[in-house]
Amino acid sequence: MKRPSIAVILSGCGNLDGSEIHEATLTLWAIHKHGADFQCYAPDIPQHHVINHLTGEVTNDERNVLTESARIARGKVINLADFRAEKHDALILPGGLGAAKNLSDYAFAGPECTVNPDVARALQEMSALKKPIGALCIAPMALVRVLPGVNITIGQDKDTAAIAERMGAHHTPASHGEIVVDRRHRVVTTPCYMLDARVDQIGQGADNLVGAILEMLSSD
Amino acid sequence: MKRPSIAVILSGCGNLDGSEIHEATLTLWAIHKHGADFQCYAPDIPQHHVINHLTGEVTNDERNVLTESARIARGKVINLADFRAEKHDALILPGGLGAAKNLSDYAFAGPECTVNPDVARALQEMSALKKPIGALCIAPMALVRVLPGVNITIGQDKDTAAIAERMGAHHTPASHGEIVVDRRHRVVTTPCYMLDARVDQIGQGADNLVGAILEMLSSD
Repeated sequence: MKRPSIAVILSGCGNLDGSEIHEATLTLWAIHKHGADFQCYAPDIPQHHVINHLTGEVTNDERNVLTESARIARGKVINLADFRAEKHDALILPGGLGAAKNLSDYAFAGPECTVNPDVARALQEMSALKKPIGALCIAPMALVRVLPGVNITIGQDKDTAAIAERMGAHHTPASHGEIVVDRRHRVVTTPCYMLDARVDQIGQGADNLVGAILEMLSSD
Repeated sequence: MKRPSIAVILSGCGNLDGSEIHEATLTLWAIHKHGADFQCYAPDIPQHHVINHLTGEVTNDERNVLTESARIARGKVINLADFRAEKHDALILPGGLGAAKNLSDYAFAGPECTVNPDVARALQEMSALKKPIGALCIAPMALVRVLPGVNITIGQDKDTAAIAERMGAHHTPASHGEIVVDRRHRVVTTPCYMLDARVDQIGQGADNLVGAILEMLSSD
């Protein structure tokens, strides 16, 4: 039997300017744990900025989102411009501020944010084919923009939840490891580091999210 | 009851020039999963070099081991020069080529390799206090240099095993998720990406390694 293929969109390598490393790694771990395969993608664009993760300061460095994502993907990452929805059974966006700085500009524009065209296209194409989409941490805000009326969680943060609702989404609060499933939009989300979490709680969230996505596929 | 405290020495952020991200993350995950706490350390030194993980090519960039390790540690990483063995119950070195390029020069000098002085001191001080030490993937080669006669695994690679034995260690082959325990030296090792592994197999190796270390502590 062919293993399900899950596309994972990375946004760099590091929670302050790219993909949150624990969320991304534990998403890949959960996909393999559940007997599925993954293919990582990332946009071939400059990072919005590069942050020194020791001090929190913005540096003068320039880094590329695709190149830095290759660190998490161990070199096996494809330019998101080449994403084809028919090749994959599901799509997952891990969190980290890269999801809100490189995949969208939510970190700067808030409710007026726009989503990177290749990210928007990947989400729209998967949605049109009724293929499940998962998002962790702050990444659900990109779904809010692209999939009107989607029901998501970003955890317990009331301000972010209010912005999501203002943008037309439904927000459902969730705690550590919990997932929110929108069966109509075929979307699964989990808060991860939107809460003050331990690393095994990130693993529980990713595990539950991937499990729910595979369950959607098998119940088709 | 106080949670055991495990120190983790990182070597950058990326399998070709720093810590292997999956091994490092799943070590932190396993530590939390077993109810212990971790503190990350890294030497405040330039990386040996910076590799483009998409192409495998050496770049002209310069990055710092401590600063890049902060991406994996979400900012919470201490200069290894400030490591004090009495603060921690155990010590773990994840793999990645950073362990053989930044923590030692094994990748270049092979059997004639030397170990970074702060890494050597941390290993020696923990060993003198009979506190358990774990190492994943290629990182056991640093232990081979510092702890004469130690029994380790680097998986199935006969050439690397022969070098370890030439340097005075005993080598025990191991497969996916398996650990090798040297009770006399209180050292636990596991091969991880020294084998062609799936991500959940890295999790199994890290889980078994952390479990064996905590068992050593509780049986004292």
